[in-house]
Amino acid sequence: MGGLPTLRIEPVPLERKVRPGDDLAELIAESTELEEGDVLAIAHTVVSKAEGALVKLEEVEPSPFAKTLAERTGKDPRVVEVILREAESIVRVGPDFIITEVRGGMVCANAGVDESNAPPGYVIVLPEDPDRSARELRQRLRELVGVDVGVIITDTQGRPFREGVVGVAIGASGVPVLADRRGDRDLYGRELKITIVALGDLLASAAELVMGQADEGTPAVIFRGLKPELERFEGPREARAIIRSPSRDIFR
Amino acid sequence: MGGLPTLRIEPVPLERKVRPGDDLAELIAESTELEEGDVLAIAHTVVSKAEGALVKLEEVEPSPFAKTLAERTGKDPRVVEVILREAESIVRVGPDFIITEVRGGMVCANAGVDESNAPPGYVIVLPEDPDRSARELRQRLRELVGVDVGVIITDTQGRPFREGVVGVAIGASGVPVLADRRGDRDLYGRELKITIVALGDLLASAAELVMGQADEGTPAVIFRGLKPELERFEGPREARAIIRSPSRDIFR
Repeated sequence: MGGLPTLRIEPVPLERKVRPGDDLAELIAESTELEEGDVLAIAHTVVSKAEGALVKLEEVEPSPFAKTLAERTGKDPRVVEVILREAESIVRVGPDFIITEVRGGMVCANAGVDESNAPPGYVIVLPEDPDRSARELRQRLRELVGVDVGVIITDTQGRPFREGVVGVAIGASGVPVLADRRGDRDLYGRELKITIVALGDLLASAAELVMGQADEGTPAVIFRGLKPELERFEGPREARAIIRSPSRDIFR
Repeated sequence: MGGLPTLRIEPVPLERKVRPGDDLAELIAESTELEEGDVLAIAHTVVSKAEGALVKLEEVEPSPFAKTLAERTGKDPRVVEVILREAESIVRVGPDFIITEVRGGMVCANAGVDESNAPPGYVIVLPEDPDRSARELRQRLRELVGVDVGVIITDTQGRPFREGVVGVAIGASGVPVLADRRGDRDLYGRELKITIVALGDLLASAAELVMGQADEGTPAVIFRGLKPELERFEGPREARAIIRSPSRDIFR
């Protein structure tokens, strides 16, 4: 933002697949040399796995409503049942997906239930409180390696009006996720108007360029030396702040 | 995407403000050493300015409809008139903005009409055909410095469901803007399902981290050595491909 020097985004490959109960901070600290000023972005799928946020499909009994929705969307009725359990409300039903609002108010497809990269017979669900997960991961990294890094937990989402998925921040700690530049002046000295930048989502999208989605070997990246640059923004530091409230949303 | 090495994003400061008729490629070539494999991302505002896509507000006579909408949104009636001329249709009217579809089908606020960073008394409008602008800039850079770089023309946009603006690619040449990974397998060997990644928008968001919005000193950035990595994707290479057609959009 402004006169940044070159931005470096380094992949952080993990040594092995993440399992429930794993200490993610330890796996990360083993894979990379963290430095003061780093921002770590990590895919929610591995956070969910470490936290045991997995559902065994064999044990899921779909309700009649789940079966109806499954027929309409072509999805596995048990997966739809998990989606319905994870969702607070249904925003819209598409041809092969269900747009939901999940706890905390985030709108996303299929309540974030992820069939890809889950162990066979399981689906991955969202971490219970991704901002808390980010806070705990940051705290644990500080304990292990003695440096304070920013943490962003990422997901990929589709969106209205545009094809393809992009990165979004669903959890954060220690970095501003919205940068309010309304005080700034443009290059003719006038005050800027619409200038709240979704920094957290920019970081998540930039991270996605490096991590990819399929390759769990690289579920995390590090932005080198970025944190000091971001510190001048006074914006909120929890990803929940990026969620637009329905009253401010003309598309709900 | 996958096993990328460290990604480097370098700012490209321009020596001076861009004026109508400027040769942008020349300004860029003077400011940085371009290398084979680079991808250049440049803010549409400077492309618009170089192409003379500016409207003098003094010469705009607002229609009665523009005046009504201006009252409803609190905007300058002349700015609303420019928005209506640039728009193909109105998707929705918000409290202080108008969601429009512009030529080519892109949905954006205020038809992309930009009051910030325009010379006093003017507004900036979108380039007539941003994919053509990207193609021409790429061609001209090849003439000037003899290297083939990818080009992305960026804008920032708000979106439903989430606060803050992110980067989007509105023009592109020489880089895939959608990466189709549906053939790929996940780490358990199953075929991936939803895996079209909006690469162009990821690049635009990553670029926005470095360029900022207010500082015309840095309206462009370079992704170093990224192009070869992207070449393996066979996706479309014009930004118009990212625009979702209304028939595929459950929010229209």
